[in-house]
This record gives sequence, structure tokens and C-alpha cells, in this order.
Amino acid sequence: VAAGSVVSRRTGVEVVAIGTELLLGDTLDTNGAWLGRRLAPLGIPVVRRTIVGDDAAAIQQAVSAALANTGIVVCSGGLGPTRDDVTKRTIAALYGRALRRDEIWLAELRRRYAARGAAMPVSNETQALVPEGAVFFANAHGTAPGLALEDERGITIMLPGVPHEFRGLNDDHVVAWLETRIEPRAGPVRSRLVRITGIPESAVGERVDDVIDAIAPLTIAFLPSFAGTDVRVTSWGEQSAAQADSALDQAEALIRARLGDHVYGVGQTDLAAVVGAELRARGFTVVAAESCTGGLIAKRLTDAAGASDYFTAGVVAYHNTAKLRLLGVRAATIEAYGAVSEAAVREMLDGARQSAAADCAIAVTGIAGPGGGTAEKPVGTVWIGAATPQHADLKQLHLRGDRTEIRERSAQAALDLLRRLLLRARSESGGPRPA
Amino acid sequence: VAAGSVVSRRTGVEVVAIGTELLLGDTLDTNGAWLGRRLAPLGIPVVRRTIVGDDAAAIQQAVSAALANTGIVVCSGGLGPTRDDVTKRTIAALYGRALRRDEIWLAELRRRYAARGAAMPVSNETQALVPEGAVFFANAHGTAPGLALEDERGITIMLPGVPHEFRGLNDDHVVAWLETRIEPRAGPVRSRLVRITGIPESAVGERVDDVIDAIAPLTIAFLPSFAGTDVRVTSWGEQSAAQADSALDQAEALIRARLGDHVYGVGQTDLAAVVGAELRARGFTVVAAESCTGGLIAKRLTDAAGASDYFTAGVVAYHNTAKLRLLGVRAATIEAYGAVSEAAVREMLDGARQSAAADCAIAVTGIAGPGGGTAEKPVGTVWIGAATPQHADLKQLHLRGDRTEIRERSAQAALDLLRRLLLRARSESGGPRPA
Repeated sequence: VAAGSVVSRRTGVEVVAIGTELLLGDTLDTNGAWLGRRLAPLGIPVVRRTIVGDDAAAIQQAVSAALANTGIVVCSGGLGPTRDDVTKRTIAALYGRALRRDEIWLAELRRRYAARGAAMPVSNETQALVPEGAVFFANAHGTAPGLALEDERGITIMLPGVPHEFRGLNDDHVVAWLETRIEPRAGPVRSRLVRITGIPESAVGERVDDVIDAIAPLTIAFLPSFAGTDVRVTSWGEQSAAQADSALDQAEALIRARLGDHVYGVGQTDLAAVVGAELRARGFTVVAAESCTGGLIAKRLTDAAGASDYFTAGVVAYHNTAKLRLLGVRAATIEAYGAVSEAAVREMLDGARQSAAADCAIAVTGIAGPGGGTAEKPVGTVWIGAATPQHADLKQLHLRGDRTEIRERSAQAALDLLRRLLLRARSESGGPRPA
Repeated sequence: VAAGSVVSRRTGVEVVAIGTELLLGDTLDTNGAWLGRRLAPLGIPVVRRTIVGDDAAAIQQAVSAALANTGIVVCSGGLGPTRDDVTKRTIAALYGRALRRDEIWLAELRRRYAARGAAMPVSNETQALVPEGAVFFANAHGTAPGLALEDERGITIMLPGVPHEFRGLNDDHVVAWLETRIEPRAGPVRSRLVRITGIPESAVGERVDDVIDAIAPLTIAFLPSFAGTDVRVTSWGEQSAAQADSALDQAEALIRARLGDHVYGVGQTDLAAVVGAELRARGFTVVAAESCTGGLIAKRLTDAAGASDYFTAGVVAYHNTAKLRLLGVRAATIEAYGAVSEAAVREMLDGARQSAAADCAIAVTGIAGPGGGTAEKPVGTVWIGAATPQHADLKQLHLRGDRTEIRERSAQAALDLLRRLLLRARSESGGPRPA
């Protein structure tokens, strides 16, 4: 393949993640999933991912198999300045290229250290070694440049495994370059993730079952998690972008018709962000009063940029004394009914709203375990509550699973309770339902 | 291979994760990493992981290649009751086995639904279809059983992809069964993860560089993340368990000697859990006062079971009014210095300790972005503080990165500040340093 020509036989991208820490399980590979999300809308699907250790033979085997399959391989990891990083020399050897020092990059690295008043560590000089003939992608987020090699077998791109560097290099350079090197499909791969909570996976499957044939050639997948069971609809590139979007709109409408208010949004949006958008639309503020969820709800409500538009405060009242002092729960209530009770969660809601002067409140008190359960209130007993200026709702949950699962499911259920109250407030006020 | 014989040519396990949602990036594969951690100490390394979509041809290709490589394959995913789940029939076909209905499992599933007062959805009947001659692993955590098939090419195990089911089936049945089917290495693969924070990766690499040769044949890897740069030392099974442990002890001692107080623990332990253990050992309680971290510190401090031993409360004072009302920060302080200032973080520390009646406090106030920065206080400007009964320390950070990174790094730095104060308190009181 001559330089500059567009590779025509490509049917997608292979991803090879390199790092013994990934196989040992010390580190989760998040780059592959991110790249899948990044490339699919461009009509460039990730068709397989392979994870191997920092081992030259395993890297060569994986990259060779990936090149044979699609001819375009994106590697992540193994480009650091330490001795266990073997990706660059291994792939250079696979392409028969020597490593040369790039004086311009070396000067740039020295300049960056000098700007911080530091001398560059000697070990960092290896970051300026570049295979002969490689395409060079300058890294604004770290010291290892992105590199691409190409011959008649295809293209191999090497990127650092540190997630913000991997993402930054893709966004700055690599994705745009890839688009010039790959003949796209007829249309893009487009997916829509319909987010659903408060109903079991098998019930979602049954309600949606007849939709599957109705929307062909689009496909449906069911994605259960602590957050609920999402439904993903995908158009695989047989259609133009406009056709695909229209088909996805129809599929989403069918799914919403089957699942009603269990649908809380589309896309990667967290339920907390949906609640946040609804609060912002109504001009409401919210306070979170948490016990067993320990700050998880506040954390999720503030993950989104601009959360200060609606989030005023959170109180994690873990000890009962904190429930009394920070939330104004009455000692008599805890004595009579316990801290995990309808009465306690109601006082948490009221106290939080008063102490933070917020319009709305969300509250959770429960037993996440593994300790603390009793015969009457076993681990998994959780009271959740939500309040808007117009309404309040309280609910008892009986959850199964470990501590993490109980905390995650409690937070999700409480956020959903507030979402439903906000929808009710919106519908009663005659405003439009959210899109 | 006759049933019951031990497969001798095995050099490790291959993992094949199945699910189009993994390639599209809607879902992170956490099962593969978990299995790597679970099997390594048993001398059964995961040598490669492959991720493919819900596609029969891709599944057959991946499983065949994995069988050829090691002869033992663990598959996750694609066993659900919905139509996109094709793993069972695809792998049954690869082994030339028909699917038969398992009446005992069907009755068990019906019994479970009846116990909850519900009728079993018809779609769930597919969960009782089992390939002829398969080893059957009952699933106490969900409806899809684990299944294993074996012929002269090797063993393929199929497990559901839902993480708690995957983990539960492995812990209940599969790992013990695998151990009977695999001839182990001379010794187990043993790793030690030395957790390090507050020092850049290249500096860690330089300080530890000479340790690499000293500890051979053990290997070292550097694992940078928002939490710091961890160093993993691994013994690859050439030694007995006792020899490996002793060699790992020596390696850890060398690394600790080079990095001192930057080492905060070993293993997967979160820094918040280390802080929690130190608080428990001293009989101290703690309160968290957070602004830009939005509950992340409270959430991490309460992730561990038994957190109520030391964690009393958290206050997420996101709006300035909440800083005044819940933490007693003075309006004059915010007016004179701003909410992101040394004076403000000091008052947050003091106010939190008073309002929650805690011995210790940890506080963060900063600008996580993307909005809210000024020329004087750009995004990434963060004040952190920590206090014990004896000491207090405040520190200004200038962080780079996106909102998530700034929040994560701020929380980690604040927890580390408290850890260092607790170590100082311990050393001044003449107590032993932690192991």
C-alpha cells in the first residue's frame, strides 16, 4: 500500500491492549470501550479486542492476527519510560524498522521539564525513540508520542495506555487521521441506548420481544446492571445516517410505548444527570440526606458539570448523632422506630430541606451490610424518600446482594423516586413531558 | 481426553468475553480482570483475553483460537434469556452437541418464581436448555447455569456475563473444578501491588530502577492512575509459594526503602480504607467536609464494611450558603478570600469537627471545572486540609485534567494528607508504624 492511499478492504478496527496488569486484573481496560464509543458513529466499528501481557511474543502474535483480520490495529499500553514497556520495540521489529532518536521531541520534553523548573529524568529519553518511517502524533497530555506504522499487511497504531493520554491523542490526531485512511461503510454504525430502571430484565425482554422483528434490520440487546436493564438498538451501517436516525427514533418510540416511565433517558447519561436536568428545568434546588449510601448520591449528582445550578448540599449522616445534629431527626424517633424506618427517612427529608434551604430532597437510610442486620431488619432493608415542594414519597426496599450492590441499587432507586415526583410535578403544572 | 483425566499441556487460561455492548463500549468488561485476580494465586494465569460481539462466527473463531493456544477457555456473556444471546448454541455447535431441556433446572427456576409469588416468564425456559454431555454448575445468583464442554481440543466453560453471577459461579463451583482439571505450575503466580501516591511515575521508575535487577526472576511493572503510581512485583511460578512470598517480602522492603511514606499500602486496598484502618487503630472518628469533590471522599470512606467504626458524617457544602449553615464558615471569610482559599478550608475543617463532634476532619474546596475558573484561580485550583486532635495541615494544589480527574486527584491528595497526619500522631505517641 503506497503512503497516502486509502486502505479499501477494511471492515473495522482491531484493538490490542497491552499490559500484564490487565491480565492480572490490577487494572481495568477502559480504553477499548472508550474507542468503541468514539469510532462507531464514524462508521468504523471495533470488531474485536485482545488483551495480552507485556510480552513480546504475545504482542507480535496478537498484532499479526489482528492485522490479518482487518488490517487496522490500535494498540494501547506499554509505551512508558520503564523497562517493562516493550510495545514500541516489539512492533518496530514486527515491521522491520529501527528505532531512531527524534531530536525535536526530545527538545520538547526537555523544554516542558524546564518550564516546571525540573531536570528531565534520564529514563524519559526513551520517549523520544521513534521507529523509522513512523507517523508521529505529538502528545500534549504526556511524554509518549502516538506512532503509526504501515506496510502491505496494514496499519498498526501505538498509543499510551494511560486513559487521558489515550483519549487525548485520539481526539487530537488519531481519529481524524484514521478517517482519511479507511474507506467507510455505506453508513455509520449508530446505536441508541434506552435507559430503563425499576423493572427486571426478563420483564423488559418480554415487553419488548415483538419490537425485535418490527425494527429489523436494526438489532436489540439487553444490558442488565445495578442501574437497571438498558436496551440498546443498533443500525449496523446498511443505512445512511439520516435513515438510521429515523429508524432509531421509531425503535425508541416503540420501546418507550412498552416501558413507559421506566425509561429515564437515552445514551450514557446517568440517572443523576437526568434528575439534575429536570431540577434545572424547574428551577429547583436539591439536598441529599444519606446514611448507608455514604455520599454516593451526592457524588453522582455532582459528577455533571454545572451541578451547582441545582445541588446545594449533601449530608452523610452515618452515625445517629449526625442524624440528630445535622438533620434534626428526633432521638425519640430513632428510639421508637430505629434509624432504618419510615419515620426516620421522613424526618431526614424534612430536616435536610430545612437545614440546606433546598426545594427538593432525597434521602436514604438502610443496612448495606455485611454486618448490622437483624431478624426484623435484615441486610438489604432500605428506606428511601424523595420530596418536591408539592409531593413526597417514601418506599421500603428489600435488596439482595453484597454491600456495593445494595448501596448502588439504593442510590438508583432513590434517584428514580425523585425523578418520578419531578415528572408528576411537571405534568400537573401543565408543562411538557421531557423529550 | 477421557473424562476425569487431568489436562497436562495447559499453560494457562484464555478468557473470551462475549457481548456487542462491550465492543460498542456501553459496558466495561470487569469479569476478565476479576478472574485474573482470582486465578493467579492458584498458579493458573490468564494468558490472553479476547472480546467479541454477539456473533456466532466471531465467537467460534475466538474460542477455537483460544483452545488451540492453551486448551482451557472461560467464556462470559451471551447466556441471557433474550434473543441476542447466542453463546450457548454457538459453542454447543462447535462441540457438535445438541441442546436438551434440563427438567430439574426448569423445575428449580419455576420454584424460585413461585416462592416470590410470580409466574416464570416463558422466555426464561431457554435457561434450562443444556448441551448434551455438559458439566452443569447450578447458579444460585441468577437463572443461567454455568456449563462446561470438553473434547480432544480442550475445555470450554460458559458463564453468564452479569458480574455478580460470573463471580458467584466461579466461587461456588468453577474455580474448584478447574483446579482438578489443570496440572498446576511448579508454583503459584504471586503478585504484590505496592501502592504509592504523591510522586510522579518517572520519579518512581528512577528510584526503583536498580531494584529491578536485584529481585530477578521476579518482575516489576509500573501502574499509573489518578490514585498514584503503583508498583507491582510478580513471581511467575518458578518458585514454591513460600519462596515466592519471601522474595516478594524482600522486594517490597526494597521498594519501601526507596519510596518511604509515599507507600500507603499493599494490594487492592483503597487509600480511604488505609485511612479508615488507621483511624480505627487510634480510636478516632472522622468527618468529611467537601465542596468540589461532591461526596466522593465520604463515599470512599464508607465503601468499606465497618466504616461506622470511624466515619461519623460528611457534609457536601456545594453552595456557599451550605458552607455557612452546615459548616459555620463565616460569610466575611468567603467575601474576603473566596470559597477556594486557605481561610475557607481551615474554617471548613473546624466547623465540620464541631458540628459532627468528630476527632479528625478532612476538607476540600476547589474548582473542578469546566466552568468557574478565573485568571487568579484557574480550574484545577484546590485547597485541601486535614486535622487530627494534635495537628492540622493545609495545602494548595494546582491540578490539570478534566473534571473527573481533578475531583479524583483532589480526593486522593486530601486522604493522603490525613494519612500522613495520622502517621505523625502515631509516631509521636511512640506507637509502632503500620506494617
